[in-house]
Amino acid sequence: MPVVDPIADMLTRIRNAHGAFHKTVSIPGSKIKTAIAGILKDEGYINDFTAEEKDITVTLKYVDGKSLISGMKKISTPGRRVFVGVEDIPSVLNGLGVCILSTSKGVVDGVKAKDLNVGGELLCEIW
Amino acid sequence: MPVVDPIADMLTRIRNAHGAFHKTVSIPGSKIKTAIAGILKDEGYINDFTAEEKDITVTLKYVDGKSLISGMKKISTPGRRVFVGVEDIPSVLNGLGVCILSTSKGVVDGVKAKDLNVGGELLCEIW
Repeated sequence: MPVVDPIADMLTRIRNAHGAFHKTVSIPGSKIKTAIAGILKDEGYINDFTAEEKDITVTLKYVDGKSLISGMKKISTPGRRVFVGVEDIPSVLNGLGVCILSTSKGVVDGVKAKDLNVGGELLCEIW
Repeated sequence: MPVVDPIADMLTRIRNAHGAFHKTVSIPGSKIKTAIAGILKDEGYINDFTAEEKDITVTLKYVDGKSLISGMKKISTPGRRVFVGVEDIPSVLNGLGVCILSTSKGVVDGVKAKDLNVGGELLCEIW
């Protein structure tokens, strides 16, 4: 069966891997998912990732046996697309979390999008 | 001060007029708001409306002293636009309520949009 929402699938794979305390998780690759993995790494939510031809391998991060990701929420979906203007980029948990947007300047987190003064499609929130 | 979200303003005016048991409420006119008023009338939420040059006058409906609108929710906003595909047009209160979409075939309720096989911007839900 084809994956209807590849980004939701990515978040689910990470969530499930955390639940099973796996060290790494493999995700079917794409440019946008590689960009999201990059943001997760920059923000300290995962240890590392490698993007190869077909798959992205994410090395998960645990501190004292706990994942640093307490929640992940897909916002825009293929069936219900959500676009925010730069003024309306949400703050996730008062800045403790991060939102990820697909903008005309690439896939970036909310803070970067504000810096670039662009809005875009609100892909997901991580906290 | 300019009205940032004219449809939200329309819903607020109706809500406030209901709260004060006014017979009619006047709303700054626009094509889209006239279309929404038409849907509210068709669905039995208001008694009638007249769209004149500048204003829409809505005649509110009460049954046994109660408004028939128990809730109104703006979904898409100027800062956070929400678009749904035809497959993802929501059912409001299992069909007791109505959602209103701006589609390529005009401003229509969710049932009509499904008939027309179009999605669009999800303006609001009324129930």
